[in-house]
Amino acid sequence: MATTTLVILGASGDLTQRLLMPALFRLHALGLTRELRIVGYAMESWSRERFERHIHKALQSFAPDYTPAHWNRFRRQLDYVGGELHPEHLSALKDKLSPGTLFYLALPPPLFGTAAAALGQAGFAKAPRGGWRRLIVEKPFGTDLASAQALRQAMHTHWEEEQILRIDHFLGKETTQNLMVFRFANRFIEPIWNAQHIAQVQITYAETLGVEKRAAYYDKAGALRDMLQNHLMQLFSLTAMAPLAEWDPEVLRNHKVEVLRSTLPITPANVDTHAVRGQYRAGRIGRKQLPGYRSEPGIARGSRTETFAALRLEIDNWRWRGVPFYLRSGKRLATNYSEIAVQFREVPGALPKAVHAGNNWMIFRIRPTEQMDLLVTAKRPGLELAGRPVVLTAPYASSDDREFSAYEQLLTDAISGDRTHFLRFDEVEWAWKLLMPVLDAWQEGAPDFYAAGSEGPASQQRLLDPGHSWRSIARNGEI
Amino acid sequence: MATTTLVILGASGDLTQRLLMPALFRLHALGLTRELRIVGYAMESWSRERFERHIHKALQSFAPDYTPAHWNRFRRQLDYVGGELHPEHLSALKDKLSPGTLFYLALPPPLFGTAAAALGQAGFAKAPRGGWRRLIVEKPFGTDLASAQALRQAMHTHWEEEQILRIDHFLGKETTQNLMVFRFANRFIEPIWNAQHIAQVQITYAETLGVEKRAAYYDKAGALRDMLQNHLMQLFSLTAMAPLAEWDPEVLRNHKVEVLRSTLPITPANVDTHAVRGQYRAGRIGRKQLPGYRSEPGIARGSRTETFAALRLEIDNWRWRGVPFYLRSGKRLATNYSEIAVQFREVPGALPKAVHAGNNWMIFRIRPTEQMDLLVTAKRPGLELAGRPVVLTAPYASSDDREFSAYEQLLTDAISGDRTHFLRFDEVEWAWKLLMPVLDAWQEGAPDFYAAGSEGPASQQRLLDPGHSWRSIARNGEI
Repeated sequence: MATTTLVILGASGDLTQRLLMPALFRLHALGLTRELRIVGYAMESWSRERFERHIHKALQSFAPDYTPAHWNRFRRQLDYVGGELHPEHLSALKDKLSPGTLFYLALPPPLFGTAAAALGQAGFAKAPRGGWRRLIVEKPFGTDLASAQALRQAMHTHWEEEQILRIDHFLGKETTQNLMVFRFANRFIEPIWNAQHIAQVQITYAETLGVEKRAAYYDKAGALRDMLQNHLMQLFSLTAMAPLAEWDPEVLRNHKVEVLRSTLPITPANVDTHAVRGQYRAGRIGRKQLPGYRSEPGIARGSRTETFAALRLEIDNWRWRGVPFYLRSGKRLATNYSEIAVQFREVPGALPKAVHAGNNWMIFRIRPTEQMDLLVTAKRPGLELAGRPVVLTAPYASSDDREFSAYEQLLTDAISGDRTHFLRFDEVEWAWKLLMPVLDAWQEGAPDFYAAGSEGPASQQRLLDPGHSWRSIARNGEI
Repeated sequence: MATTTLVILGASGDLTQRLLMPALFRLHALGLTRELRIVGYAMESWSRERFERHIHKALQSFAPDYTPAHWNRFRRQLDYVGGELHPEHLSALKDKLSPGTLFYLALPPPLFGTAAAALGQAGFAKAPRGGWRRLIVEKPFGTDLASAQALRQAMHTHWEEEQILRIDHFLGKETTQNLMVFRFANRFIEPIWNAQHIAQVQITYAETLGVEKRAAYYDKAGALRDMLQNHLMQLFSLTAMAPLAEWDPEVLRNHKVEVLRSTLPITPANVDTHAVRGQYRAGRIGRKQLPGYRSEPGIARGSRTETFAALRLEIDNWRWRGVPFYLRSGKRLATNYSEIAVQFREVPGALPKAVHAGNNWMIFRIRPTEQMDLLVTAKRPGLELAGRPVVLTAPYASSDDREFSAYEQLLTDAISGDRTHFLRFDEVEWAWKLLMPVLDAWQEGAPDFYAAGSEGPASQQRLLDPGHSWRSIARNGEI
């Protein structure tokens, strides 16, 4: 009998095919999940063989390291049970479970509560003696504060907080994890990581993609829910949190929550100076002429959904008072460009003017390349005393490093029970609390337009302090 | 009439041919010294034409940018007067001088005092109304504290300290000047540039060269006088000095002197724990078999002169107490390798052991390449939480930067009267004061041997604190 079982609810769906199975296949190839049984569960009354064929096809399309030989070993781990999300149907899984069992809700978000409750009613939330039960939930965790709290309640009837692993795949990304390591493994960072030395922080996630096939979901969600409330708020709290007393998931999440709790609330009166929304119109990226958001298939002609959102956040604690954190994300922007950019304050006088070549920046680049940059001033070679900007740079990974997807990382952590890279409910809750005034205000009015292929709406400038300017998306953050 | 005149005393000598004239030629080509008259002065009773031919030949050999066309313009600036270092002979220069006139003592060091006095007696130290007189002196400025003080006295009978420009060509080097700019033009440096965050500093100047044609001088001087007392002490004080209140030559030199004054004296009793000397024996560098120092032409068979010297210096001030500064220089070492390497302290606990990949280093590399490196710890890509060392790096100059030699820089500064990159007498004096106990102790005993092509004598280890180790010369400082 396998020592661990992973039950995937929604095993016939898109997430399973595209992300979960390729990740599990890769981990198996690396010898990391040899003892894992994978049980698919879905409405289809498929046989085990039918499920195998379905997964086989998916892997051939989506697993870059697919080989028939490896498939023949991997397939033996697969099993399937068909049924609805009712306790009686789910009971059929009983004999398939191991002492350690994970349930993965690869389901449409409206079903998260139902599924968690039904699993509980089937008795699966209670671990057998010496074993464990865990529940993996995908984002989004609610669509606002009230729905998140309701969902929590539905889950917590049967499941304990410690059993629930909420996925934010940004936390599975290498560059996000490096942010944590880098901040605390390098002596030179901590003494300068505060308002005395840092002037501003910009966190950007820009993409050239439009809504693609997610129109139905996206038009209801918008950029603030889709990117800011979860992913960018995570990068925000990891950038700003205080050093950990111990490398422990609860200490880590306590510190992240403390950042959110110290963040000044955006009030109905100051939404306009703290939040900007945009929606793309027709435009071009490179040679490609692209339609406006309202002309995309599946989008309402008069949609007021934002495809770009920017926030100005201020943390009122000892470390950060006076340092604006600017967060923004949008679709159909000039390039695929993502980074955390930390600007240091000016140096005090004494140096001749010609030496000043701009302030230092520490930049964790995520896209288009994963690298770390430190922008400094060095002497300009020559007879005159003058400075110029120079970038100290290092790639994050070298060509002989094995790259792992966020799902490989997160599944490995979930199986081993490491909660470090999963969200605790209070993180989700505080992020919603901070954003509710913005979401409420945005019920009225409409986003500002921006051309596809641009830097986003011009109105984003209003969030910035005098002397600050957004780093250029089109020029990949060149200053 | 030229607005400025440069009189070179020792105009028929090696320094003039190899360094001064090529530098002046280059500056002229760049249009920087069009108004400068250059008057050679030497014992030879040459005509102007004869001097021109001498210089022409020198430039053809030593000026990389020599062209006949440019020579034809440059030659018009040249003039020559023959004579001894007597006031009456020097008087012949009177009609050649401009309101602003510099005298360059390109002479053997024993003649510095005589020449300065004779120029004074000829009335050349007194500036005419609205003009100026400056005296440029080459190193070495004395061979010990007493001779340096005597030389000062000989010069100061006629010349004011403000008129005297003492050359240490390390101060004319781009990388040295960048050290000053870098430290104060970058916000992230100053908060971490102290004993709380820095564990040790290593300043190394290693060369593969032997004594070459300088045997007579070198066998009397040795490495401590030849490299440590001047060049490395300059790098030391520039690395350690406090930030300037103003970018001003006197403020700068005050701060450098303060470093030397705060440096704990080496006492006769602790010379052995603060200084190490070595002398190279036969060995090989690459495929080349090389003789020992005592077998070099012109070196006494039983010479006890050190060809390698290392010092441990400790600064007892608020900024640096507890941080050892290790300085070393030597001939016939494994590579041409020079740098200032600053190691930061460990980070405190909290992180899992596997994350620790060593302490941060900030390295100003001078040879073999001019670049800045910041050694950091980043997450090792992969599923496990582990760190690895990564180097953030930037070249100091790019290929389209125009490179200037130290002499081009220093002559430009001397003409414009900028004393920033020249030594004040108290700098020289304090450096001698610090080193006298070592020089005195080294009258007795003998240096430790090291093989040509090695890292220097094994005994250099004894200078280091527990946990410290010398960066590898053979591997260009790879850690």
